[in-house]
Amino acid sequence: MNTESNKPRFPHISLAHGNGGRLMRELIEQVFARHLSNPLLDVQADAVPLPTPDGEIMFTTDGFTVQPLEFPGGDIGSLAVHGTVNDLAVAGATPLYLSLNAFIEEGLETALLDRVIESLGRAAVAAGVRVAAGDTKVLPRGEGGGLYLATTGVGVRRKGLRLDMQQIRDGDAILVSGPVGDHGIAVMLAREQFGMRGDLQSDSACVLPLTQALLPLEGLRFMRDPTRGGLAMIAHEIRRATGMGIYMDEGAIPVREAVESVCELLGYDPLYLACEGRVVAVVAPDQAPAALAAWRALPQGQDAAVIGRIDKSRRFVVMQTALGGERMLDELEDDPLPRIC
Amino acid sequence: MNTESNKPRFPHISLAHGNGGRLMRELIEQVFARHLSNPLLDVQADAVPLPTPDGEIMFTTDGFTVQPLEFPGGDIGSLAVHGTVNDLAVAGATPLYLSLNAFIEEGLETALLDRVIESLGRAAVAAGVRVAAGDTKVLPRGEGGGLYLATTGVGVRRKGLRLDMQQIRDGDAILVSGPVGDHGIAVMLAREQFGMRGDLQSDSACVLPLTQALLPLEGLRFMRDPTRGGLAMIAHEIRRATGMGIYMDEGAIPVREAVESVCELLGYDPLYLACEGRVVAVVAPDQAPAALAAWRALPQGQDAAVIGRIDKSRRFVVMQTALGGERMLDELEDDPLPRIC
Repeated sequence: MNTESNKPRFPHISLAHGNGGRLMRELIEQVFARHLSNPLLDVQADAVPLPTPDGEIMFTTDGFTVQPLEFPGGDIGSLAVHGTVNDLAVAGATPLYLSLNAFIEEGLETALLDRVIESLGRAAVAAGVRVAAGDTKVLPRGEGGGLYLATTGVGVRRKGLRLDMQQIRDGDAILVSGPVGDHGIAVMLAREQFGMRGDLQSDSACVLPLTQALLPLEGLRFMRDPTRGGLAMIAHEIRRATGMGIYMDEGAIPVREAVESVCELLGYDPLYLACEGRVVAVVAPDQAPAALAAWRALPQGQDAAVIGRIDKSRRFVVMQTALGGERMLDELEDDPLPRIC
Repeated sequence: MNTESNKPRFPHISLAHGNGGRLMRELIEQVFARHLSNPLLDVQADAVPLPTPDGEIMFTTDGFTVQPLEFPGGDIGSLAVHGTVNDLAVAGATPLYLSLNAFIEEGLETALLDRVIESLGRAAVAAGVRVAAGDTKVLPRGEGGGLYLATTGVGVRRKGLRLDMQQIRDGDAILVSGPVGDHGIAVMLAREQFGMRGDLQSDSACVLPLTQALLPLEGLRFMRDPTRGGLAMIAHEIRRATGMGIYMDEGAIPVREAVESVCELLGYDPLYLACEGRVVAVVAPDQAPAALAAWRALPQGQDAAVIGRIDKSRRFVVMQTALGGERMLDELEDDPLPRIC
């Protein structure tokens, strides 16, 4: 299907591309089916069968609204694959299928849409998932971002695997798989609204190799990818769910120099910034070295670190600062950061 | 969870409701979890397990953009359940689970959002499906409709059931389960842009009782719900997929008087109008009476009718008019109708 002759010839999306007729069929065939073609995706069918191996069927969904639609290291298309695939991965599942909803604003440049959906198709192949269902709607021209995507993921998980915050025990170690905040800062810089530019790339990636590397560890309690709200958000969720405090060592948390500098300049805290290709894991303390070694053996996990522990003697999320003091990490209330999603 | 004390106290949605922090958690708890609460929906989990009975797992997705968000006989919330549940139902499946993505425009009235999500929850219970995953994003204020929803559905279908356009044979009968165009005209009238008002209600409903009534028939070839593009769209899809023409008897197609009158006044053709609670079925000619009887025995199928047949001696979609002449039904090209979704 992926032929030059089949490329879309309309330069912009119009409302008529959403009306259920010939133009909509052309949009779907020439952009979506062209890049996402696979034996399962049947644009004619109301619903398609999903062949599934043995295990628990796992289910998740996410919406995507990043601005700009393309940024260093990714775009809304690859992000829409990684975001949902990663939610399945950190739940201990193998991602298998995605559904894709595209809400396209009237006037969007077709070439941009085409690049984004091509990128989405590549990311899906790389992550080993197939887009098995899709739908597009065209929105009247507004002041929106031109394109909103939603993906729902289906995966399979080994029966009996327990992996959630209820498994967390006092003293458990907290690890992160790599530097935090790259995605947040890369997207901010791509907006050029601060007059800054940089070489920083988003960390947007499929984290399946990272999560699968930890699954054999019996002491693995819980994994999560620090997206919206960052590392700080995960710490607060664990605190609320377990009733135990969190102690983190600021000096141990990997942050790239470029991220550090921008945060210092603009007064942001990297711990609240979104990542799109990192994993936070909580493991039994005696298995922290094995978990760290498993991650560091992977290209994606070179900078993995043990960054803190569960501490029920504390009531809050406490950070030991580089200067040896302690500070409390507040819960995100309003918008201290430029919105990136 | 569904307590008065837990009702949201913020009158409008703000961008901060989308930032991953406390306000977003309150929005999700006080609106979404409050109305959609069920044992599966875990707002803390990245992905949830779906218990599934034996059979083929079926998968579908749809996006929803109706204006106004509430209309006689329904709203975008119930519509987002019916649209996706119906796609599973016409594929011969029993719908089990939904994911829900909400894209909410900054400034949307919280009370309206609350009514819509409450309605969505009621429609899900009535259709026997559980919302097992969800996500919300807040969009900057634009000229959009205030709320866009996407739902992805998972169902189960009897193994070995063949139900698609490839099963269709020359001479097969075409049935519709009730009057067409109610939804399209009800939404149009709700806009009040034509200075007309009426008592017409949308037909928005779960069609599962209709589809299950036909599943025991061996001669059942194919079912579809005539949404965007209407009856005419389905006829053209069958023609393209099978290479056979379609013959329809205009006088046999059930259309309510109110729909007929509005169409005459404004020059629309009811065959292109969207329904949200009707089914078109193609069955072997000798089983048309049994199919018709099965539908008419249901409250939703009182006005069911045999409306035409597959006719390979014709190349087009041909309509026998009330006056005894014939006209060709064109494929929808541009926007001959006011957009309702």
